[in-house]
Amino acid sequence: MDFKALAQSVLERQPFNRLLGVELLEAGPGAVAFRLPLKGEFYQHLGAVHGGVVATLLDNALTYAAGSLLGPEVLTVEFKVNFLKPAKGEALLARGYAVGQGRRLAVARAEVYALKEGEETLVALGQGTIAGLSG
Amino acid sequence: MDFKALAQSVLERQPFNRLLGVELLEAGPGAVAFRLPLKGEFYQHLGAVHGGVVATLLDNALTYAAGSLLGPEVLTVEFKVNFLKPAKGEALLARGYAVGQGRRLAVARAEVYALKEGEETLVALGQGTIAGLSG
Amino acid sequence: MDFKALAQSVLERQPFNRLLGVELLEAGPGAVAFRLPLKGEFYQHLGAVHGGVVATLLDNALTYAAGSLLGPEVLTVEFKVNFLKPAKGEALLARGYAVGQGRRLAVARAEVYALKEGEETLVALGQGTIAGLSG
Amino acid sequence: MDFKALAQSVLERQPFNRLLGVELLEAGPGAVAFRLPLKGEFYQHLGAVHGGVVATLLDNALTYAAGSLLGPEVLTVEFKVNFLKPAKGEALLARGYAVGQGRRLAVARAEVYALKEGEETLVALGQGTIAGLSG
Repeated sequence: MDFKALAQSVLERQPFNRLLGVELLEAGPGAVAFRLPLKGEFYQHLGAVHGGVVATLLDNALTYAAGSLLGPEVLTVEFKVNFLKPAKGEALLARGYAVGQGRRLAVARAEVYALKEGEETLVALGQGTIAGLSG
Repeated sequence: MDFKALAQSVLERQPFNRLLGVELLEAGPGAVAFRLPLKGEFYQHLGAVHGGVVATLLDNALTYAAGSLLGPEVLTVEFKVNFLKPAKGEALLARGYAVGQGRRLAVARAEVYALKEGEETLVALGQGTIAGLSG
Repeated sequence: MDFKALAQSVLERQPFNRLLGVELLEAGPGAVAFRLPLKGEFYQHLGAVHGGVVATLLDNALTYAAGSLLGPEVLTVEFKVNFLKPAKGEALLARGYAVGQGRRLAVARAEVYALKEGEETLVALGQGTIAGLSG
Repeated sequence: MDFKALAQSVLERQPFNRLLGVELLEAGPGAVAFRLPLKGEFYQHLGAVHGGVVATLLDNALTYAAGSLLGPEVLTVEFKVNFLKPAKGEALLARGYAVGQGRRLAVARAEVYALKEGEETLVALGQGTIAGLSG
């Protein structure tokens, strides 16, 4: 099974990603992309998507990017997120990249974009450490 | 209106927190606590609560703790989360504390505990920066 | 050898800490404290201690606190620092605490205070992950 | 005065950067590079450069990159660093990039490389928030 099919199969077994409606766009060695169609339920009271939704997508991007190198059984050790602009629009897009890798730990970066009326706006940046459970 | 009532009213106007079922336990100057009853939809494929759910609760704890000092209109500038153990059980509990405060920015810390069969286990630590929109 | 004596002996074999003049105040299971007398060489151009000096002290506090649990051979996996106020005065004081611990990784928090004319001011907060090389 | 000359003049007024011997390589709108020749005094006891030296160079890269957009009077609000490999060799090289910018805050990323026998090794990644004091 290629990595994209494997990633798709993991995604389908993750209830929280199904609850939100996270879609896998791309998955190759060290790089992945996800899409999340936005619904009214994802917002906070000031008209922006809740930071937790953005963080969820970032966490996916970091772990799947690292998982393409470390194997499918991974846990997030830690990550940080910088929010650049309020997120709103039709969908969020997240891209994750594995930047460095040891035997058990990988470091990854990710970006989240909001798609609104055909424009992509960078709304958040992430950086984190992922642990592989095998090996 | 006291701060707890104000915090409760903000929470009720946040669709994503309503979607998950986040409950406000306490809210005073610089310190807040939330509870999130866990459902099967919140998990990932390895049997732990998805990091995005934990991050959502942390983000709430950080922003409401800072908001008790900066006013109710706040935005998360950034935060980081360290995951200590897989989260599972009946509920998550989050405590947030404002640690320092300038005119527009506050720094806060938060902890997330998993409640399982009467035991509290520390599952995540957060630290972040919150901006007040007024002032 | 008790942990404080071990920590002192590690400190003395660290050239960068000797260059700055870092002093060990306390070291016990999961908690340590350091002191750094401030010199003019530690400042930046706006009259505050350079963030790198504060980060150095924080890194020491995090790693020695974790090292008290994981053994003396540790490496910093990552950390984050929030700067609360410009640091200035006679000395910096750093306190580190190990908060959680697995077999190979520990999570620690730290605070840095500036001492000026008898007053302690909290100037920075840190949170990070430390890896033990043995075990 | 162009930005590189301005950055050079700020660097020369920063005692801690002079103490270490930090050199400015490049400085343009949103991107900077620094070089730090390594000396024995910069190491810790396991034969790697102390994390505080790496963090100092990262802090410079983040603040000067952001400062190219926000003006020369900036303060680091926060940053995080992931250490990928032990740093050793003849010199460290740091590159900083401003990624997003509001009126008062900018978000920047940075990388630190170790130069050893003609090879560059990525040793650390940073991400942080910088505040401009003017405007």
